[in-house]
Amino acid sequence: MRFSRQLITVEEALHRLLERLGKQEKEEVHIGEAYGCRLAEDVHATADLPHFDRSPLDGFAVRAVDTASAAPHQPVRLKVVEKIGAGDVPEVALTEGCASRIMTGAMLPPGADAVIMFEQTEQPAALSQEVGVKRALPPGENVSRRGEETKKGAVIAHAGEQVNAGTLAILATFGYSRVPVVRKPRVGLLSTGRELLDVDQPLSPGKIRNSNAWMLSALIAEAGGIPLFFPSLPDELAMAKQSLAEHLQAADVLVTSGGVSVGDYDVMAALTDEPEAELLFNRIAMRPGSPTTGLLLHGKPIIALSGNPGACFLGFELFVRPALAKLSGARQVQLRTVKARLAVSYTKPCPYPRYLRGRLAEEGGVLYARPDFNEKAGNVGTIKDSECFIVIPAGGGGKQAGELVEVLTHMAPSWRR
Amino acid sequence: MRFSRQLITVEEALHRLLERLGKQEKEEVHIGEAYGCRLAEDVHATADLPHFDRSPLDGFAVRAVDTASAAPHQPVRLKVVEKIGAGDVPEVALTEGCASRIMTGAMLPPGADAVIMFEQTEQPAALSQEVGVKRALPPGENVSRRGEETKKGAVIAHAGEQVNAGTLAILATFGYSRVPVVRKPRVGLLSTGRELLDVDQPLSPGKIRNSNAWMLSALIAEAGGIPLFFPSLPDELAMAKQSLAEHLQAADVLVTSGGVSVGDYDVMAALTDEPEAELLFNRIAMRPGSPTTGLLLHGKPIIALSGNPGACFLGFELFVRPALAKLSGARQVQLRTVKARLAVSYTKPCPYPRYLRGRLAEEGGVLYARPDFNEKAGNVGTIKDSECFIVIPAGGGGKQAGELVEVLTHMAPSWRR
Repeated sequence: MRFSRQLITVEEALHRLLERLGKQEKEEVHIGEAYGCRLAEDVHATADLPHFDRSPLDGFAVRAVDTASAAPHQPVRLKVVEKIGAGDVPEVALTEGCASRIMTGAMLPPGADAVIMFEQTEQPAALSQEVGVKRALPPGENVSRRGEETKKGAVIAHAGEQVNAGTLAILATFGYSRVPVVRKPRVGLLSTGRELLDVDQPLSPGKIRNSNAWMLSALIAEAGGIPLFFPSLPDELAMAKQSLAEHLQAADVLVTSGGVSVGDYDVMAALTDEPEAELLFNRIAMRPGSPTTGLLLHGKPIIALSGNPGACFLGFELFVRPALAKLSGARQVQLRTVKARLAVSYTKPCPYPRYLRGRLAEEGGVLYARPDFNEKAGNVGTIKDSECFIVIPAGGGGKQAGELVEVLTHMAPSWRR
Repeated sequence: MRFSRQLITVEEALHRLLERLGKQEKEEVHIGEAYGCRLAEDVHATADLPHFDRSPLDGFAVRAVDTASAAPHQPVRLKVVEKIGAGDVPEVALTEGCASRIMTGAMLPPGADAVIMFEQTEQPAALSQEVGVKRALPPGENVSRRGEETKKGAVIAHAGEQVNAGTLAILATFGYSRVPVVRKPRVGLLSTGRELLDVDQPLSPGKIRNSNAWMLSALIAEAGGIPLFFPSLPDELAMAKQSLAEHLQAADVLVTSGGVSVGDYDVMAALTDEPEAELLFNRIAMRPGSPTTGLLLHGKPIIALSGNPGACFLGFELFVRPALAKLSGARQVQLRTVKARLAVSYTKPCPYPRYLRGRLAEEGGVLYARPDFNEKAGNVGTIKDSECFIVIPAGGGGKQAGELVEVLTHMAPSWRR
């Protein structure tokens, strides 16, 4: 299978991988640890929100009926019987001709059914026990009713949602100091290749420093996984197989880089011929990264990315990111693309769809995608400036400037950063 | 100043804040800690990349001149004198009629000036010492020349850039195990209001749980700051002032929520009248959040956000996020908007520009912005689903469906997640 590879599409390869992945188990974490996790189950409101009638602004709580004759030049005078701050429990019920000074977020006193803004009143003096109401209020004006935003028991966040800052706000509102989340997948990270040096080793002839491991560890964390650095894989097959099997005990999925091609030392390619391995794909109709390989070893998933930095990066976005989303319980795990106008023509022929790194821009409400033209896919130095992959369909025609193309974004667009 | 406030625009308020903020000092961190930091200085290539002539693919290194007469049905036979894996140092120089088996990334042997793909050759048998080259190669074909991607000394990343996965790849390539970054700003986080309960406290009448602190801590971390939780601020002015002054010793900037309005217990508003405080702004032409306040206390910045969750969130995006970018040495710190077509009409009159939470979608290469229509700005439960603020200009006209509007995105669009 190593040399006679079956060519399949990106979509088919991703399908074969995703259908073999389940959802990780649930765990509870403190709210301070929940950011970036996915919810394991629907989360419900534990109370009405707000859980008491309250004032949304600074002013005076009144009985609407008392204000019926009020007008800017004919204020209705009411006796101020209490001052209610946020957090206070009102002690005085309003009766005819009475009002209470009330602050934003404070509980309405019994008897009150409207609030007039501070700015729409007059007080003869700072310490006066009277207020002049300058406009008539309908009942319910400026009152946030109990349960108005959310009723107790309503779903406030759904299983599979990723916890963001806003999710924390609503979880805290309802007292979720412990949050039910899907356990983050542990992603074992291995490199292959005798040429690799660590980042703190000096260069020597023929050797290069391992850059993919650092890149992949950041991408894994971004995608909601926990990266585990494992030592480089030996290029002797039996040893490599044993090492992978051991690491699979400690990880939920392994991601490797390098060794997927037809070179004599390509151990990941050799592995696909072994009886313990179930091959999912090892030849994908895409450039770069067509030898990107997916397999199960003892039933557990290994995604073997190309060692070429650009192809490694693309392979992560096409296969590893959706795989981690699936393991984490995301509802949407397929690749999502947008359409954009190609900023400049690209007509280089290619037998497979080509994924060009590029950037996304907006002009007059229209999206434009601009390929990094001067770059080779393998260049490592421009990955940091890329925002998206622009998909150029297979064939000789390419795409002309202004044509709509599919774009797979892998980074928030620059207008967001 | 608390009651007679000067109305200014969002842009002017932001300008007043940013001009008083400097750049934090430089520090060196391990590459494993650098993700999300901003570079303190330009970073340079420490060697040529690649630092030796190498093969970009699996095949045979040859002398181009030897292949001149090769054709698919008339292969040129060369003697294979060495097998060179990635990381090996070649030991045999090529002479006339010789070739070396070479793997992806391996160093070219002396004398070689081209590489033919494995798939374009034939070998009579697996262990044969001969290879048949089926096409003529020009000199330089399939050779990655030393320095081809980057010359030693070239700038590989610029001061102010935020370190992402791709940045780590190029830093690792050049051996930067220690990375010069701008020290992340420590952001002290305080809430005001006697009504606030902690997330693990039971509800009681008139009280609500503090949700802003959790939301803000996540937003601060997202924006490259280090959130520090401080105890809630007392609503007695002298005590509050002392508490703030103390916390400013431990933090580079303070962010508070609540207490900015005209209520009797609004301690942040009262603070602006104190002699130690220098007011930057406390009335902004925007909805929600017009009382959002900026000030310096003993010369150090405090950004006092509204306690209303929606206004607090907006205030963070408009003022705190750019402030943290400035402190972290970002080159681009102004708010960046995109234009999008409004998906549905919005005609509610407003004296100030209104920032509507909403979502961004793409259809046929055109961006559409859809407001969260059924929501009040104060609702806490829908912040998590918001991607952007849609800016509706002041006045009675609003905007019609299909018109272009300015959009401030605060979350990666859904097609990215």
